[in-house]
Amino acid sequence: MKHRIAALRGLIAGRRAGGYVSLDPPVNAYLTGFHGSASAVVVTPRAAALLCDFRYTEQAKAQAKGCRVREVSGDLETAAGAFLAEAGCASALFEPDRLSVSAHGRVRKAFAGGRLRAAPGFTDPLRAVKDAEEVARMRRATEIAEAALSTAFRRLKEGVTEREVAALLEHEFRKRGAQKASFDTTVLFGAHSSLPHGKPGDTPLKQGDIVLVDCGCIVDGYCSDLTRTAVFGSIPGAWFEDIYACVLEAQLAGLAAVRPGAGAAAVDRACRDIIARAGYGPRFGHGTGHGVGLEIHEFPRLNQHSATVLAPGMAVTVEPGIYLPGRGGVRIEDLVVVTPDGCDVLNKLPKELQVIRP
Amino acid sequence: MKHRIAALRGLIAGRRAGGYVSLDPPVNAYLTGFHGSASAVVVTPRAAALLCDFRYTEQAKAQAKGCRVREVSGDLETAAGAFLAEAGCASALFEPDRLSVSAHGRVRKAFAGGRLRAAPGFTDPLRAVKDAEEVARMRRATEIAEAALSTAFRRLKEGVTEREVAALLEHEFRKRGAQKASFDTTVLFGAHSSLPHGKPGDTPLKQGDIVLVDCGCIVDGYCSDLTRTAVFGSIPGAWFEDIYACVLEAQLAGLAAVRPGAGAAAVDRACRDIIARAGYGPRFGHGTGHGVGLEIHEFPRLNQHSATVLAPGMAVTVEPGIYLPGRGGVRIEDLVVVTPDGCDVLNKLPKELQVIRP
Repeated sequence: MKHRIAALRGLIAGRRAGGYVSLDPPVNAYLTGFHGSASAVVVTPRAAALLCDFRYTEQAKAQAKGCRVREVSGDLETAAGAFLAEAGCASALFEPDRLSVSAHGRVRKAFAGGRLRAAPGFTDPLRAVKDAEEVARMRRATEIAEAALSTAFRRLKEGVTEREVAALLEHEFRKRGAQKASFDTTVLFGAHSSLPHGKPGDTPLKQGDIVLVDCGCIVDGYCSDLTRTAVFGSIPGAWFEDIYACVLEAQLAGLAAVRPGAGAAAVDRACRDIIARAGYGPRFGHGTGHGVGLEIHEFPRLNQHSATVLAPGMAVTVEPGIYLPGRGGVRIEDLVVVTPDGCDVLNKLPKELQVIRP
Repeated sequence: MKHRIAALRGLIAGRRAGGYVSLDPPVNAYLTGFHGSASAVVVTPRAAALLCDFRYTEQAKAQAKGCRVREVSGDLETAAGAFLAEAGCASALFEPDRLSVSAHGRVRKAFAGGRLRAAPGFTDPLRAVKDAEEVARMRRATEIAEAALSTAFRRLKEGVTEREVAALLEHEFRKRGAQKASFDTTVLFGAHSSLPHGKPGDTPLKQGDIVLVDCGCIVDGYCSDLTRTAVFGSIPGAWFEDIYACVLEAQLAGLAAVRPGAGAAAVDRACRDIIARAGYGPRFGHGTGHGVGLEIHEFPRLNQHSATVLAPGMAVTVEPGIYLPGRGGVRIEDLVVVTPDGCDVLNKLPKELQVIRP
């Protein structure tokens, strides 16, 4: 991960700082390739080190590239602060969203003579732009999630519960080689689908139910994230066809808006305008999408307030929805990577309204 | 959760503070019963509030007991700080391990005129002592995990991989009604079992392999955690019978040491002495156990440095192990609840060395 650390050094120099310290597993995985759950990464102009305890030394030496692995006893924060002090840094940056008050205090105490400076979202711009290997992992995670979802849809039958379908999906992820689900699988039947943050329960599936599934898995550390909404047996009514067609139109408009130089807010607007024009504006109560990578929710956000301009290599979801309380909802979500002239949609599952026959 | 908030108020008064603030989901679930992923809890002598955004209002009103639910727009930290300021608190406690530097800064800014005071582990003593309902949930989570493990052991066959067994176990948790696994399931075959923090891989099972499984699930928010070590087909050698017998003796000695008034360090010593006397001291490189509840690792820790004295209602694991690099390891783990005169072992699976016949 030598080039990533080199890029980080460029950012550090740009802030006129003497170093950077992170105790955050996803950031540390990005910078070094080490995927263990406890480590510190310290980068200065001349040194880059991954600090871990004896439990992880072997794994760190096998995984970490472009930095030295140093086994430490005692807490990682104190070791990281001492490393900065020994390196003679006058100041070091840290990400205040990714460090607890306690951990910060321990780093600061050991970093005697130096100053810790908060740099919110410091590594976000680096992590947002994926390289070919990262995209390949997310593509594979998408393929596995889609194969699992196809299997789950094929096996739907009357009386199965939301929980059971969620369990089946997560098992299919694992059987196909994913590490695990990238977040708790959402499966919502019927009117339950109108809750954008609903959780699978013991509702049994019945004829004419909406089936909304939001799921993803992890392959080699990288996440997928997709949503499809189908119906079981028959379409619940013209109102449903209306909102489905509207969400699909919005989602396609969102995909068409993704290209280098486009504002993340413009992609949101492309979706939101279509839904608002159809009169459902207040029923689309969340942002259009978010970055995906080592974490399921990353920088950038695609919403009305986002100031981010899209750049090639950014991996983001496009997932508009309409939710009618007491009746039901529709959300359609793809994961896309920004290309030099538009975007590459990692998903291959069809998006036309699918009536699943028992 | 009125009595929990009352107990918290007692602790707040004991520190001569005017309030307490938490943004931490497990703490907030404990204090209020709300199990959503984003909330703030603010407690003062006269007020107790759960703050959440519109996505969670309905769920919060259904789940939260003993406090007012207040829907807020904007960030939860600012709303929490403003709540403390409006309540006229001069100072408020927070847990610095459970609050990021950013979140702390936002609470502090909004808590104009008041002072935030770090209180590490402030709610630990409350959360460590479980009530009957909490124990019932952990007992059920243990029953489900044990039923799943029995199924997995029965289905073992030559050539199955560690990953496949882990996937099967997690699926069995779900099929039996658990929400999900309480941590990433560990399944290690053969010499791989000598890595106390090893991860399941694609190693196929073969005759004479050790099979070490460390797993647990979540029922109504509460975790289980258990480890069993068996062998497949035949015992790999007398050395293995030796370390198995030693770990079992140590584990039973640990269980016998768990009672009110006993030091957590004494329980660790009870296990460690037996292993050390057999000459395996350096091969038991972790603590004897940890608290379990809404989180898989909670206060107290049972290790050589622990100053905690056990009290009735504390739920802790007892899990000594011996790990011989390149050969294999044994760990045996039960989850127990301290009773007035000893402990209640939630686990029912046998602990004698089991040879699984294909």
